[in-house]
Amino acid sequence: MTNVEEHSIRTLIFGVTGYTGMELIRLLSTHPRAVIVGGSSRNWAGQRVDEVFPFIPAAKSFPLTTIEELLLDPQADLAFLALPHGESAGCIRPLLDAGLKVVDLSADCRLEDEHVYAKWYGPHKDPDLLSRAVYGLPEIYREAIATADLVANPGCYPTTVILGLAPLMNDERVDCTRPIVDSKSGISGAGRGAKLNTSFCEAGEGFKPYGVTRHRHIPEMEQELGKLAGQTVKVRFTPHLIPVSRGMVSTIYVPVRKKISTDELRDLYADRYRNEPFVTLLPKGAYPDTARVRGSNQCHVSVEVDERTDLAIVMTGLDNLTKGASGCAVQNMNIMMGLADTEGLAGTSLFP
Amino acid sequence: MTNVEEHSIRTLIFGVTGYTGMELIRLLSTHPRAVIVGGSSRNWAGQRVDEVFPFIPAAKSFPLTTIEELLLDPQADLAFLALPHGESAGCIRPLLDAGLKVVDLSADCRLEDEHVYAKWYGPHKDPDLLSRAVYGLPEIYREAIATADLVANPGCYPTTVILGLAPLMNDERVDCTRPIVDSKSGISGAGRGAKLNTSFCEAGEGFKPYGVTRHRHIPEMEQELGKLAGQTVKVRFTPHLIPVSRGMVSTIYVPVRKKISTDELRDLYADRYRNEPFVTLLPKGAYPDTARVRGSNQCHVSVEVDERTDLAIVMTGLDNLTKGASGCAVQNMNIMMGLADTEGLAGTSLFP
Amino acid sequence: MTNVEEHSIRTLIFGVTGYTGMELIRLLSTHPRAVIVGGSSRNWAGQRVDEVFPFIPAAKSFPLTTIEELLLDPQADLAFLALPHGESAGCIRPLLDAGLKVVDLSADCRLEDEHVYAKWYGPHKDPDLLSRAVYGLPEIYREAIATADLVANPGCYPTTVILGLAPLMNDERVDCTRPIVDSKSGISGAGRGAKLNTSFCEAGEGFKPYGVTRHRHIPEMEQELGKLAGQTVKVRFTPHLIPVSRGMVSTIYVPVRKKISTDELRDLYADRYRNEPFVTLLPKGAYPDTARVRGSNQCHVSVEVDERTDLAIVMTGLDNLTKGASGCAVQNMNIMMGLADTEGLAGTSLFP
Amino acid sequence: MTNVEEHSIRTLIFGVTGYTGMELIRLLSTHPRAVIVGGSSRNWAGQRVDEVFPFIPAAKSFPLTTIEELLLDPQADLAFLALPHGESAGCIRPLLDAGLKVVDLSADCRLEDEHVYAKWYGPHKDPDLLSRAVYGLPEIYREAIATADLVANPGCYPTTVILGLAPLMNDERVDCTRPIVDSKSGISGAGRGAKLNTSFCEAGEGFKPYGVTRHRHIPEMEQELGKLAGQTVKVRFTPHLIPVSRGMVSTIYVPVRKKISTDELRDLYADRYRNEPFVTLLPKGAYPDTARVRGSNQCHVSVEVDERTDLAIVMTGLDNLTKGASGCAVQNMNIMMGLADTEGLAGTSLFP
Repeated sequence: MTNVEEHSIRTLIFGVTGYTGMELIRLLSTHPRAVIVGGSSRNWAGQRVDEVFPFIPAAKSFPLTTIEELLLDPQADLAFLALPHGESAGCIRPLLDAGLKVVDLSADCRLEDEHVYAKWYGPHKDPDLLSRAVYGLPEIYREAIATADLVANPGCYPTTVILGLAPLMNDERVDCTRPIVDSKSGISGAGRGAKLNTSFCEAGEGFKPYGVTRHRHIPEMEQELGKLAGQTVKVRFTPHLIPVSRGMVSTIYVPVRKKISTDELRDLYADRYRNEPFVTLLPKGAYPDTARVRGSNQCHVSVEVDERTDLAIVMTGLDNLTKGASGCAVQNMNIMMGLADTEGLAGTSLFP
Repeated sequence: MTNVEEHSIRTLIFGVTGYTGMELIRLLSTHPRAVIVGGSSRNWAGQRVDEVFPFIPAAKSFPLTTIEELLLDPQADLAFLALPHGESAGCIRPLLDAGLKVVDLSADCRLEDEHVYAKWYGPHKDPDLLSRAVYGLPEIYREAIATADLVANPGCYPTTVILGLAPLMNDERVDCTRPIVDSKSGISGAGRGAKLNTSFCEAGEGFKPYGVTRHRHIPEMEQELGKLAGQTVKVRFTPHLIPVSRGMVSTIYVPVRKKISTDELRDLYADRYRNEPFVTLLPKGAYPDTARVRGSNQCHVSVEVDERTDLAIVMTGLDNLTKGASGCAVQNMNIMMGLADTEGLAGTSLFP
Repeated sequence: MTNVEEHSIRTLIFGVTGYTGMELIRLLSTHPRAVIVGGSSRNWAGQRVDEVFPFIPAAKSFPLTTIEELLLDPQADLAFLALPHGESAGCIRPLLDAGLKVVDLSADCRLEDEHVYAKWYGPHKDPDLLSRAVYGLPEIYREAIATADLVANPGCYPTTVILGLAPLMNDERVDCTRPIVDSKSGISGAGRGAKLNTSFCEAGEGFKPYGVTRHRHIPEMEQELGKLAGQTVKVRFTPHLIPVSRGMVSTIYVPVRKKISTDELRDLYADRYRNEPFVTLLPKGAYPDTARVRGSNQCHVSVEVDERTDLAIVMTGLDNLTKGASGCAVQNMNIMMGLADTEGLAGTSLFP
Repeated sequence: MTNVEEHSIRTLIFGVTGYTGMELIRLLSTHPRAVIVGGSSRNWAGQRVDEVFPFIPAAKSFPLTTIEELLLDPQADLAFLALPHGESAGCIRPLLDAGLKVVDLSADCRLEDEHVYAKWYGPHKDPDLLSRAVYGLPEIYREAIATADLVANPGCYPTTVILGLAPLMNDERVDCTRPIVDSKSGISGAGRGAKLNTSFCEAGEGFKPYGVTRHRHIPEMEQELGKLAGQTVKVRFTPHLIPVSRGMVSTIYVPVRKKISTDELRDLYADRYRNEPFVTLLPKGAYPDTARVRGSNQCHVSVEVDERTDLAIVMTGLDNLTKGASGCAVQNMNIMMGLADTEGLAGTSLFP
């Protein structure tokens, strides 16, 4: 095991060799308070992680085991589950029972209603967890996260949409009950694996919609926006694939009911996010760009009112592996462990 | 001058070394009936084109001169104007007077109303041309193009939107009067030139909105959709930049008023475009992908109804330099000269 | 079957849905004299090709069958084998026996010595073919190809190296017996298939050597260079992967023995390739660029002498799927059928 | 000015808005001991850096001034010069005179011989600096750097070559006096600026040699390799451009004189770099990949002997902006200020 300083937070990563697992390693490798003491990998169990990934320095290495072994006697403070949905649900209870806090990056604890989960993902393995989990979007639920032992890390698309619409959900000047959300994601969002349609020659120089009207993140958006609005919200959602590894931009359209200017809209957002370290309202005329958030935990936001056509346009951008997944998971860990949100997450984006 | 076979169509290209000029060369180099006999280039006047672009075979080469020289005594049947707006307008009358037909790839002849032009582009240099020009979208105006001597080649974004919405504009089951158009363009759409924001390191791995609510293609879309609808149409338009050289996808949202299924919608499109060689309705579940239209003159179309939220979604994709510019210009030439639309344009896309 | 004009060359493609098969379709779709009348595909047998690839127009479509069915009664003039090595060897004899000419794009007929083949590829399925095949590099063996019924289409790396060194092999001013060849290939060279290491997220923004000292194209280079030199040649070969779909550049280093200037070297190449339609000596100071040969059948060549260190540097660039594979195969078909090399191959590169 | 903690190292960055300046900001923003207290920018003087780059948090911001203003009364411990060569030379003496230590990222202090400098770069503005500067490659000159007040940060290409060959320069089994160096660089190496040849559409999907036999990094390599060898070394150097923003791979060829195996070669490198935190010998069969060093300060190394042809092949890879420029500059700062090399540089690469 890694040499762990006293007072360090000891963490486990289930699913080390997927992209969100690898991103957790990257972020935690420079975290001043947390260390990784073990991880699971189906393919590499029995090796140390620096043998699998030569870019991890030996000093930061840790052993890889199977999920089953890792669950046997988990000596740690907190576990990150970077596993596929379905698989995640089966690991949570043993970890909670062993006294660990859990941040689940899968979809398994995000939906409150077991029937909605079943409709979009199939039967839930441990539905009692749904009421125990806190939805881990710190900008909305920071207080609840601070005392939770199980946090459901949000989906990447929902993060762009909820952060994008939260300041508007109760503003009567716009109609947020049926937003049109046109989202674009980098290819790492499809996960790590050998698939023809995400191969370099097929996806490179490509851009296309996918999963039109049918993406599984829809119920998650509708649940959270509905809670913010205090009424039912239907999201019209079209995801697209961008030929970049990382990055996500959502362009969100809501009708204007009563006159509101771009400046007034900007004020709303500036107020709402003034104290949020990871939500930045861009200067007027600047728009979210995947290249400017790569590797950072920032969500960039722009807003415009098209006064000619009575439409409010909200644009949000983030790195789907960082603020859209593992960065937010570390932020949740920080909050759960009583640290500042920004601990270990202060890195600026890698640009160019 | 190139050795011109009898019966060949002799063409001139004004603005050879921009991307649409270069694409005209590529397409015409294998056209069975047309030859390029001269071209203009500010920077390379006095050289032959194969000296500037070594990938052009000597047998297909032609001399480069200034615009002024090329206008002096234009010995040709048809001229393509691949010049910036404003500059184009000044060249048209001398060419028409010399008996040439003209396909203008700039915006200078697209708008019918001089005042609308002035508002978006500044004062027009030769406003009488506006009523003389035919809007060169063959799928809508093929008959008028056939007898025109001046054709205004459509903008790339408008082509995706007009082809995307034409079958719906008079269908009472959907409301096409205020469509939301979320478009994404490859970087060649920004033209050829040295700019920091389209440099590889700034634009690569990037994706972002630009010109939100303010893009100059809006009045062109509204003019043409309005004519198809027989009423005023307001377009809510947000363009984005994709990190690919070529390609454009528009995702278009219109509310459903009366129940219509995806299959019924597909039938509408299949009927409308059955005989169009360059509009392809993709199989159900397939969506336009820039990688599959690169270098071809195809516009790919998909349609879906989101019955859960009463929304029709139209997705169109094309190569902005081909069907979105120079390929369409050659198609217009074909029609103006009495040839089949497909002459010289049968090439399939370069994939991968 | 496709409606075949009289006098057309009827072709078959074995292995339609790999990248070289797809590139054959692209090139033949605008060939004025050849048509594809059938093809094989393991996964799509029973469908027509335009159902599998919507970007192929119905008018150019053809049925897909299994290899076995296609071999039963092959009604065609020429077959292209775009199959993996090993698989190809088993198809050749039935085709030759049925009177077809064959262009084999695999490695199965490239090596003259059965033992060398066995060492690098394993036992050969039909070694008698080796002496019957002509090595299909038209710039070296055009006459023999013209009368051959079996042509072994060269490997992509060997094409860059043999075309790059042919003018020097008998020049005593340089030592070509042990060239250092540093080659870089686009990712389509790895074939079409779902592999983690050629996925967008793993290969994008990447560049790396692979197969160092061990690539299977080494014996092919050594055989052909040795024949040109009249003595044994050992090639020191290091391939690398470039994050582009198409394109290949080889940088080749040979020691200078007796003083020779860059201009003298250029003259050698200009003389050697003066009448070759698909080999272009670039202007002095210009170097091969994958972006300038994409989709064309051109091989671009530059040469420099580093007089300070007595080294000759030859740089060659081509599209690995076109001049490096399917374009050369069509060029070979043209020669075998008595057509000009350039028939159907005049297209300039797709740039940008 | 930024709120500076006691005991912090106060730094200045000359040339903030180029890529190496921006990379310095990224690296120093998470450095536990250093802060940036000011910077120069021709275009943005008078603004604060977070106004120019919204991705820099306000807490890490600092004022931008002209070079002249910054030189007037430089209140800091150390200055990084991320200026073009020529411009850098003029700033050094005032900084040294004011008691600052200086890390110069330009080429102005790298060459020891004024005449060699003049031949490749033109006349030197302050040639006396040449003997005062220490060549800042920590793996070679760590001790001298520790006591230097002026460090010449190495060029990116020379870093790959010197680290690649250092273990061999005195080994009689190989001949390192005339290595062939085939290098490939990401496009950020060309600097930040609007140039047609590095625009996305021109450089994307491209790969090409440039500056063949004439690159300015040649004398730097020859100087340093010559010192290591104790004799004159001539480098045969061909750089190429890879279509990635960051990353560099050099493939280096040296003849084997006396039998040596790959394993023996590996042992040499393992011994030489055992204690170097930023040089990693990759596992056997793994090769440097730009994608695996992006954003990290690592130099990855592989070695192979081609026993068939008596050639040793050394492959090195790094991020040209990090270990190839700003990361190494921070490493030099650490050494000059008595900190561990790794302070603030422990981040793993951004992958994917």
